[in-house]
Formats: sequence, C-alpha cells, structure tokens
Amino acid sequence: MISFARGVPAPECLPVADLADCARAAVERDGTTVLSYGPAGGYAPLRAWIAERHGVEPGRILLTNGSLQGFVFLTEHLLAQGSKRVLVESPTYDRPLLILKRLDAEIVPVPLDDQGLDPEALERILDGGPPPAFLYTIPTFQNPSGNTLSTGRRRRLADLAAERELVVLEDDPYGLIRYEGEAEPSLFSLDRAGLVIYSSSFSKTIAPGLRVGYFVLPDAVESALEAAAASTYITPALLAQATVSEFVSRGLFEPNVERSIGLLRSRRDAMLSALDRTFPGEARWSRPDGGYFLWLELPDGVGADALLSAAEREGVTFVKGTDFGGEQHTARLAFSFASPDEIETGVERLASLLPALAG
Amino acid sequence: MISFARGVPAPECLPVADLADCARAAVERDGTTVLSYGPAGGYAPLRAWIAERHGVEPGRILLTNGSLQGFVFLTEHLLAQGSKRVLVESPTYDRPLLILKRLDAEIVPVPLDDQGLDPEALERILDGGPPPAFLYTIPTFQNPSGNTLSTGRRRRLADLAAERELVVLEDDPYGLIRYEGEAEPSLFSLDRAGLVIYSSSFSKTIAPGLRVGYFVLPDAVESALEAAAASTYITPALLAQATVSEFVSRGLFEPNVERSIGLLRSRRDAMLSALDRTFPGEARWSRPDGGYFLWLELPDGVGADALLSAAEREGVTFVKGTDFGGEQHTARLAFSFASPDEIETGVERLASLLPALAG
Repeated sequence: MISFARGVPAPECLPVADLADCARAAVERDGTTVLSYGPAGGYAPLRAWIAERHGVEPGRILLTNGSLQGFVFLTEHLLAQGSKRVLVESPTYDRPLLILKRLDAEIVPVPLDDQGLDPEALERILDGGPPPAFLYTIPTFQNPSGNTLSTGRRRRLADLAAERELVVLEDDPYGLIRYEGEAEPSLFSLDRAGLVIYSSSFSKTIAPGLRVGYFVLPDAVESALEAAAASTYITPALLAQATVSEFVSRGLFEPNVERSIGLLRSRRDAMLSALDRTFPGEARWSRPDGGYFLWLELPDGVGADALLSAAEREGVTFVKGTDFGGEQHTARLAFSFASPDEIETGVERLASLLPALAG
Repeated sequence: MISFARGVPAPECLPVADLADCARAAVERDGTTVLSYGPAGGYAPLRAWIAERHGVEPGRILLTNGSLQGFVFLTEHLLAQGSKRVLVESPTYDRPLLILKRLDAEIVPVPLDDQGLDPEALERILDGGPPPAFLYTIPTFQNPSGNTLSTGRRRRLADLAAERELVVLEDDPYGLIRYEGEAEPSLFSLDRAGLVIYSSSFSKTIAPGLRVGYFVLPDAVESALEAAAASTYITPALLAQATVSEFVSRGLFEPNVERSIGLLRSRRDAMLSALDRTFPGEARWSRPDGGYFLWLELPDGVGADALLSAAEREGVTFVKGTDFGGEQHTARLAFSFASPDEIETGVERLASLLPALAG
C-alpha cells in the first residue's frame, strides 16, 4: 500500500542512532530527576530551552505527552470559562475536531483560501454571534490544506484578536519544515494583547514517537493546565523530554531539521510534478511551501469517497476531505511518508482512476 | 526537610545505569517503531510480557502514561454506562478521589480495618442503594493504610462481585514490594465472572519517572479505552515502554524488585521501631507487610492538622489523613523516601511534639 494518508515523517527522517545515544546520556547525566516524579509542567532544562527560543519565562512553557494532550487540557480550561463556541479553520486537522465534539463544543468553521484563514469572514462571524471561547488555527503549512497565512493577514488577525479580546491558539507543528521562501512572523510574535497561545511539538523536527509537545501560555493558564496535568498523569514522560533536551543541547536540532527538509522537499516535488503531469486540468491542488500535506480538489462529479475505494483496491490510500470538514470532492494527500518513486506511482494510479469515476 | 509525605521510592532504589543502557538499546534495537506513532495501547513487546504474566491475550493489556491516566480513561468509560456511584475504600489514595470529584461521581466510602475492606459493610452498601459503576480497591499494602485484604475476604469479595455483577478495579502498584509473608491471591485471579479489572505500574518496581502504567481489561473495555487514548495523545510514551521492555527482557526485573525490597524493608523496620520506642500507648499505627505507607491514629485530642504545622516547623512532613477521606486524628506516614536514620530522627521529632498538642 502506498500511503498518502499518514501524516508522519519518513522513517529515514528519524535520527535513530543519535537519539539512542541521547537517551542513554540523558539518564546517565540526570537519572534521579528523569526517573522520579517531577513537575507536571515537564523537564526543566527543555522548558528553559524552549522558553529562550520564544523569549518568555520558563514557567510559561508546558510540556505535554504530545501536543494533542495539551489541546485537550487547554480546551477543557477555556470551555470552562463559559462560551462553548470554538472557531476553527475549514477544513482543519481532524483530531481536534473530534476532541471538540467530545467536549460538546459548538464548532464554527471559518473559511480559508490559498492565503490561509480569511480575516473578513472571521470578522463577520465574530459580528454575527456571541463571543467564542477561542479560535484554533494552524497558520503555517496548514493541516490539511498545506496553505500558509500571509503576513498581511497575520497582522490583521493579531489586530482583530486584540480588538475583540479573542483568544487564539496558534498550532505550529510544521513551521520549521519549510522548503522555500521566507518564514512569516508567528501570530504569537505579533500579539501585543497576550491573547495568542502558541503550541508546537518535536514530532516533525525530531520524532513523533517521543510524544513531546509544548505550549507557550500566559502564567495563569499555564498554572491551570499544569494542575490538570498533575491530576491526570502526575508527571509527563520525562525520559523522552530529557532525550530531546540532550539532543538539542548537543546542537543536533537544526542539522536534523535541515536533513528532514532535504528529504521531504524531494517528496513534495515528486508529488507536485506527478500531479502536473498526470492529473486533468479540472482538478486543482495546493502548492505548499512546507509541511507534509497538499489539498486536492477533484474534477466535477468525482467524489473522494469513490476515488478512495477504487484507490485502495489499487494499493493507494489517502484521507477524504470530509474527515477535516471539507467538501465531498476534496482529499488530503500527505507526501511525507512515501518515497519519491512511490509517490510518482501512487499519483499515476490515482490519475488513471479518474476517467471512469467522472463518467 | 525529612519527608514522610512523598510516596516515592528512595533515589537509591532507581536502577540508573541499567536504565540508561536499556534506553539506548531499546532505540537501537527497534528505533523505527519506538520513535514513530504506534498503537494507542502501547509497545507490543511489553504488552506481550505483561499479558503472559497475567495469563491473558496481549490485546487485553492497555499501557498508559502512568496508571492514573488509565484510571481517568476507565472511570470516564464506566461512568458513561449510567451509574455515577463509585465505591471506594475509606480511607483511600487521594488522587483518584480528586479525579472522581472532577468527573462528578457520587463517592461512597466503604470502611476498612486491619484485614482490609470489610465485605459485610460492602454488602450492606450494595443492599442500600442503586448499583454502583464500580468499586475501586487497593487490596495489597493499601495506600494510605498499609493494610492488606485477607485471603478469606478476597474470596468473599470475588463472590460478591459475581453475585451482584459489581465491576471491581483492583489497583496493585505495591503488591510485589513485600517484606514478609506469603502473597495473597489477586482478586483478578479469583474472579470467575470477568468483572475484576487489574491495574499496576512499574513506578514502584523500576522507576516512577518512566510513567508506565498498565491495565488488564475485558476485550471490549480495552478497545474503548484504547480509542480514548488515541483521541487524547495518539500514542503513549513508547520510549519509556520500550526501555521497560528491554529491562525485563534482560532479566533485570526480579533482581531489581529484590533490591528495592531490601532497601525499603529496613526503612519500614526503622519507622516501626522508632514508633514503638517513642510514641505514647494511646497512639495506634498499622504494621504493613509491604508497600510504602503506614497509617497513624494520633492520641485523643491531637489533630493531624496541628501536628503537621508543628512538624513542618521542625523539618518533618507527612500527609494528613483527611486528604484520603480519613478522620482528623489520622495521618499517612511514608517510609519509602527517607533513609533509616532520617526516619528515626523524624519519628522522634513527631513524638516530641505530641505532649504539647495533647494539652
């Protein structure tokens, strides 16, 4: 099976030998701390490293067992303040959507285009209803669309947040995996009102199995989430956090990101060129400057459902756009996992299935 | 500060060098699996090892980021079936009490004595109200009392569970840390009706910072909890689980438990002999055959509150019994963390404070 479904790094991206040695060194260096109960906010040296990168105090950093776990804590905390409305990009990452449903949030989709979330549509939504608990956004190399919020829109969104006292969760797992162009400023860096919460993880920059996510929070929110963490698992996974800390302190982080970018850029290029070569003109797809995914709009009359069933019989899989709140004729294609050759073969197979489905 | 508060192993119990090497070997041996997303139920080789010890299929084992995390998933699952009543021992471990309160459970205390939970009292409670969602019990070296459920009562409890279709969660983190006597049969082993769920962890047998807890569940419950885990953190902390797996596969588990028992037995002995020597006859305390804790009943008129305030000024700390649902004149003393010399000094200081407080 050629998987365009899995939003995971290629196994070749994983720095196995370095992490094996970092895990050993982390336990040898600081075993009593790493192997004991500790602060629910996570391993102090890693909190300090992240804090410095973001220009905040370490007490504002919460390390979680993957960033999704932190999303659960944060959502529970923000919904408990009163409003159950949560604004999300349409389409957006499916796992937060499922969590929001489980927590009985009222999910309000905000349209996005190839410049990212549309601030005018957001403003109309804010005008048209009660204040939301927060806005969840992935501004850079968005999952699933691959689109990136333009700098102008980032400034407008930061201003709008301040004017409307809108809490914004900026989820940024992919931001460092950039294949071309200059990085836009984070919403967090543009925020003057203390309303933007930043989250990321080491899943795409080191390894997802480590399950080390993090949040940059206002002090009071950090305290509340740390209490929730303590009363859920006492202490997060310190061994993985200390391994990451050892990895970054050895100067291995940036070279590893560069290596991943090199590997993944060739996959993105392979997918775009295969689509250009084999897909009909009536189909459209995003051209992401980074990240793992592109968003495909199928030709008129072709449902992603039907294509997926046919594709899986041919050994190719992807995720239907409807899983992300998208329309029937949309799909998310991940180029992170399969090799360039597999990508070419997989895209060719998808293209070969289209004529029969459009008929 | 001499801490009788911390229910944690002494740092000398932690097998630091072995775990450092096991962490390295685990990543080298199976890096692609350990460092990638994987099953929400946890690292397969460790699930298989635990399954074999308990005589069940590996699919019935759920590994969680500490057993408290699993307690949250299980409680949410069981409360969603309808009944909000949860029976707990009185006194019991404080963290589950807090979780039950947060989840709006109706907490019903069941008295225990030096033979553990009283089955006749349990029967009266079952007769006197609607069916509970489950009973939470720590039958061996109970936290906080240190008491152990007798074999006769275990049989009675297993029968009662079957008669009344009562789901029982048997939490057994301390069972292997036995200083004398023969092990009683687990409730899980006596259960013929598939109603006893077993949970434990490697916190007391290897190291708490690893955060590797586990549950032995009926298939359907395992599937439900695995789905909850997937939608909370995708994959648990595989690095720690693979490190534990390496540790047990090298045959280091039993020797490490034996070493911990030796270290901790001398601490229990130091605490009991210091209490015997310095405490007044009107005080009473449990004499645990294993585990981390003993339960202290202070002389008439001495509140644990007042003793704790006075003790902390003298550099000794413990946890008040009221935190566990106990009475004002009770306290939990942990002998796991302080050295035998510190224990002797700490108990002497507590004893020296009693006359003034009783006055």
